[in-house]
Amino acid sequence: MNHNQSSKKIIDRLRRIEGQVRGIQNMVAEDRYCIDVLTQLTSIVAALEKVEDIMMRRHLETCVTTAIQSGSEREQQEKIGEVMEVLSRFRKYGSGS
Amino acid sequence: MNHNQSSKKIIDRLRRIEGQVRGIQNMVAEDRYCIDVLTQLTSIVAALEKVEDIMMRRHLETCVTTAIQSGSEREQQEKIGEVMEVLSRFRKYGSGS
Amino acid sequence: MNHNQSSKKIIDRLRRIEGQVRGIQNMVAEDRYCIDVLTQLTSIVAALEKVEDIMMRRHLETCVTTAIQSGSEREQQEKIGEVMEVLSRFRKYGSGS
Amino acid sequence: MNHNQSSKKIIDRLRRIEGQVRGIQNMVAEDRYCIDVLTQLTSIVAALEKVEDIMMRRHLETCVTTAIQSGSEREQQEKIGEVMEVLSRFRKYGSGS
Repeated sequence: MNHNQSSKKIIDRLRRIEGQVRGIQNMVAEDRYCIDVLTQLTSIVAALEKVEDIMMRRHLETCVTTAIQSGSEREQQEKIGEVMEVLSRFRKYGSGS
Repeated sequence: MNHNQSSKKIIDRLRRIEGQVRGIQNMVAEDRYCIDVLTQLTSIVAALEKVEDIMMRRHLETCVTTAIQSGSEREQQEKIGEVMEVLSRFRKYGSGS
Repeated sequence: MNHNQSSKKIIDRLRRIEGQVRGIQNMVAEDRYCIDVLTQLTSIVAALEKVEDIMMRRHLETCVTTAIQSGSEREQQEKIGEVMEVLSRFRKYGSGS
Repeated sequence: MNHNQSSKKIIDRLRRIEGQVRGIQNMVAEDRYCIDVLTQLTSIVAALEKVEDIMMRRHLETCVTTAIQSGSEREQQEKIGEVMEVLSRFRKYGSGS
């Protein structure tokens, strides 16, 4: 699968997620049972995390690999620093919000 | 803040999230830097988790409280079981997807 | 299973976790492959989260239930506030550390 | 900081975590307030995640960098696959336990 095909698949996933977020607005408006809303919310988060994983893999396979192959120590450090920052953000969901 | 006002606020949050999900589709289509897409994704997840927390608090304050006050042991067990199930799903994001 | 039996089981779990943490110290000292160390670390975290879930369920079934049955609105609010605070900490692991 | 010094620091962190896990056993034995036990548990998980982050950064800076510099496409794929697997485990704590 080339880069453009993979982007198209990611966008499709995001479009489905967008629809799910719209669906939850209706659930809240219709005053549906909290646990059903919560279950739906956790499934959207799972779908978003799947997209995060796809993007992270793509990032490692392209930008990070290129930086490391460039042989520039500074660029390697920078890329690895960025990856670590995103990873820590994967864990600190909700902090500060 | 009464129930309807609080629902309205939740729907407003979800509408903003919906817009953010749409925004990321454009970022991917325009082939923006992976780390910027990832940062945006983690901020959407944070926003969704905030909604989860609001729904969970509402659930504890209403349905769970009512079940416990009813004095029916079976209903209490059921409600607490549901809460625990959602909590475990808060943690298992992405499993199986 | 009564309260004391359940406490004993929790302590047994924690004793096993303690042993696993000691085991990882050896892995690091012996310079074992990072991925193996990481796999082991994630399994310890999973075991700790299992203990968290047991404690949370116990808390809901005892203290929170008692507070809600007491009928004191203030106490209910306080207990639910505490639960929500722990939940948000479940998510913000690592923040600030 | 060289590799051995960094290993020593990691082991020191794990030793402190081991002590904290022992401390919680006492808290449970003394029947301390669930919320205090839970707060302590979340702080141990935070400390373990800090160790995970240190190990992950070390892994990216050493093994992954070496694999990518080797120029072997197969090795690169393998290393990136391993990293992605650990990342997904970072998220699925508790699943199956």
